This record gives sequence, structure tokens and C-alpha cells, in this order.
Amino acid sequence: MFLSFEGIDGSGKSTQARLLAERLKAEGCVPVLTREPGGSPGAEEIRALVLQGEPDRWSPETELLLFTAARRDHLERTIRPALAAGSIVICDRFADSTRMYQGRQGLRATVDQLHSLMIGTEPDMTLLIDMDPVAALSRAKARATAEERFEDFGLALQQQMRADFLALAREFPDRIRVIDGNRDPAEVASEIHALVTAQLSETTHG
Amino acid sequence: MFLSFEGIDGSGKSTQARLLAERLKAEGCVPVLTREPGGSPGAEEIRALVLQGEPDRWSPETELLLFTAARRDHLERTIRPALAAGSIVICDRFADSTRMYQGRQGLRATVDQLHSLMIGTEPDMTLLIDMDPVAALSRAKARATAEERFEDFGLALQQQMRADFLALAREFPDRIRVIDGNRDPAEVASEIHALVTAQLSETTHG
Ligand SMILES: Nc1ncnc2c1ncn2[C@@H]1O[C@H](COP(=O)(O)OP(=O)(O)OP(=O)(O)O)[C@@H](O)[C@H]1O
Ligand SMILES: Nc1ncnc2c1ncn2[C@@H]1O[C@H](COP(=O)(O)OP(=O)(O)OP(=O)(O)O)[C@@H](O)[C@H]1O
Ligand SMILES: [Mg+2]
Ligand SMILES: [Mg+2]
Repeated sequence: MFLSFEGIDGSGKSTQARLLAERLKAEGCVPVLTREPGGSPGAEEIRALVLQGEPDRWSPETELLLFTAARRDHLERTIRPALAAGSIVICDRFADSTRMYQGRQGLRATVDQLHSLMIGTEPDMTLLIDMDPVAALSRAKARATAEERFEDFGLALQQQMRADFLALAREFPDRIRVIDGNRDPAEVASEIHALVTAQLSETTHG
Repeated sequence: MFLSFEGIDGSGKSTQARLLAERLKAEGCVPVLTREPGGSPGAEEIRALVLQGEPDRWSPETELLLFTAARRDHLERTIRPALAAGSIVICDRFADSTRMYQGRQGLRATVDQLHSLMIGTEPDMTLLIDMDPVAALSRAKARATAEERFEDFGLALQQQMRADFLALAREFPDRIRVIDGNRDPAEVASEIHALVTAQLSETTHG
């Protein structure tokens, strides 16, 4: 099973991906926790090109090609081998992030064409952590990072991103599950674990 | 005007591109001499990822995406601005090299789809330097370089590449001109200069 986490900055994707991996491991599963951009040695090198440097370092189109190159490498070298070995892959961001971020720059149709040409794969289930942008923003600000090419702490942008993510969830109603992230991390984790467990037994028995 | 040079390793592309640029400059034109992969700061960084390291560092598909990202950057940051300023752009390798090298790995259809989606532009004229692979090989061996991921001094491969380049010239008969490179560099340069001058006056007056 291939799972992805999506949501605005600071919504708790990395936190919940880790909590889910820990719980599945305790239950005897073999989760592989990975992230995008990155997740394989080559893709991590591309990540450095994309996330560091000046905001205008790459055009939206070149950036899209670099993200797609990193995703292709990640899929071939990490995700597919792990799935073939029977692991549960938990990915912190995947193609929906590209649909959102590069899609916002007028490239949604190009993103989709490039995706079907070079990627093809979608997660079996995507957990979209939805939450109040004001709270998410104050969480995100607390983190310090050198990878700040995309960091934008503007509230208006975060509000727009939240609405866009919810629209994406309506576009893929069978795949994307919206989770209320305005709660205690353990509570959020329990809901996610229940959804994943249900999906797992459906995949195994249904 | 946008010109590209193509041909097997050691055929004299870089030599002839430089000679053409020098002669056009002496005649009062403003040539911009550039190369692929690379030709802009971002594309040169991608070049390092692609040309260095182990042969199996990237899959053919990821490599194709990286070459396309570098080409898009090169086009936006170097080629199009130079053409807009009235310069003659002379490019040492361009999209035909991708058609050849990635095409050989079974990706020709993908190369073409990616090209029309993300690049679109073709040179006005491509100078294909055709020559005896044995002679080209002994020339190429004389050069020392750290960028040897693709270096292959196998004669059989070079013979196949030569045939593939000639087939490509038949596919694009209006754009690709085949030049006999088994001659003194000055002689080859004269023929190329005559072709370019004819094309220039056609573009300007015709
Ligand atoms: N439910 C929660 N309640 C309160 N704080 C939380 C909750 N979930 C995560 N946090 C904290 O908020 C911060 C951001 O969380 P996290 O890094 O998981 O978000 P993210 O979605 O991965 O962000 P980014 O997109 O920037 O990587 C962290 O410091 C984390 O400990
Ligand atoms: N017509 C020629 N006759 C003899 N030697 C030549 C001729 N043209 C180029 N050379 C020499 O052959 C070597 C290879 O030429 P060059 O570097 O121009 O080839 P290239 O096509 O750019 O090769 P590569 O694809 O490996 O970059 C150089 O050392 C160059 O000086
Ligand atoms: Mg995170
Ligand atoms: Mg050369």
C-alpha cells in the first residue's frame, strides 16, 4: 500500500507521517517513511537544487521538470522496490503538492500531461490534513530551515492554498481523505490510523 | 538565427562551432556560442548531475527529464534572450543529441512528447558533422575530461551512432545539413560558413 500526506505548511504532515509509521511498525508491519522532493539519493540532490537559492532561480516550467525528475527517481529507487517487497510506503508529500504549487502558476494542464507521461502512479490513499491557516502558520514559523526558497508566511497565500487543497480533494474523492488537523496530534493520529487500517483490510480481504 | 552542431564524439562539433563564431564575429555579427547540456548557470548545475558519477546513477527516464530541465533553462535564460537581441546563437549539441542518446534507449516517442510539451523550439539549421568513427574515436581519446559518464570508446557503438545520426538527417531534411568532417578543419569551416551565410541572406532577404 502506498500512502501520501498532503496539506499546507505546518499542518502536521511530517508529524503524522512519523506517528503512523511508528504505530504500524509496533503492529508488525514494515512501513517505509519517505518524503518529497527527495526520498532517494539522486532525488535528494535534485531537492537541493530546487529548495535552495533565490526565488527566481528557476522558471515554473524548469522547476516542474526538476520536481518530475526527482519524483521519477524516487519512484524507481525507493517507492516501487519497497512496495514490491511488501512494505507500506508512507510519503510526506507526493504529486498533489506539484498539482497545487506548480498548478497555481498556470501549469496545471502541463503538470497533468507530464505526470501521465513520466510518473503514472498515484497513492492508494492520500491523507489531506486540513486546518486553520493562522494556527498552521504559527506552527510553521517555529521551525528553522535552510530550505526556504518556497517559504512564504503570508496568510492570504496559505488561505488560498487551503482552499485549493480542498478543491483537489473534491477532484479525487476516492483517493483523498480530508482530516481535521485542528486537534491534538494523538487524536489526529488515531483517526488516520483507523482509516489506514480499514483500507488495509479492504485491500487484503476485499 | 539559431544554429546547432551535432555529430558523434570527436567529430569536431566544438572545434567548428568555435571557428564559425570567430568568423562571424570578424564579419561584424554578434554570435553567441553556447553548449548543451549547460549553457546557463542553472543548466550547468544540472549538467554536473548528469555527466558525472556512475553510469547507472540515473535511469534513462530520469536522465531525459534532467536533460529537458537543463534545455528549458538554457532556452529561457540564454538562447531566447540572445535571439531577441538579434544575435546568432551557435549551440554545441541541442535536442537532436537527446533524440539520439535517449532515443537509443527505447525512449524516442517519449523524447518527442516531452520536447513538444516543454521545449517546442528547433534550430533554424543544424550542422551534422559526419565522419569515419575510427578517426573520430582516435581524436576523442586524445581529450581528457572528468565528465565521463557517457564516454564510450567502443567502435561498434560509434558506428551505430553515426548511422543513427544519418537517419535523423533524413527525418529532418530541411533542417539538418550533413557535412563531411573527414577533412582539414579549415576546409570543413569554409563549407559551414558558406551554408550559414546562404541561410542568413535567405532569412534576411527572402
Ligand atoms: N496537531 C498538532 N497540534 C499542535 N502542534 C502540532 C500538531 N501537529 C504538528 N504540530 C507541530 O507543528 C509544527 C509543524 O508540524 P509538521 O512539521 O508536522 O508540519 P508539516 O505539515 O510537515 O509542515 P511543512 O509543510 O512545513 O513540512 C511542528 O513543530 C509540530 O511539532
Ligand atoms: N577536422 C579535423 N581534423 C583533425 N582533427 C580535428 C578536426 N576537427 C577537430 N579535431 C580535433 O579532434 C578533437 C575532437 O574535436 P572536438 O572536440 O571539436 O570534437 P567534438 O565533436 O566536440 O567532440 P565531443 O562530442 O566529444 O565534444 C580535438 O582535439 C580537435 O582539435
Ligand atoms: Mg514537513
Ligand atoms: Mg565537444
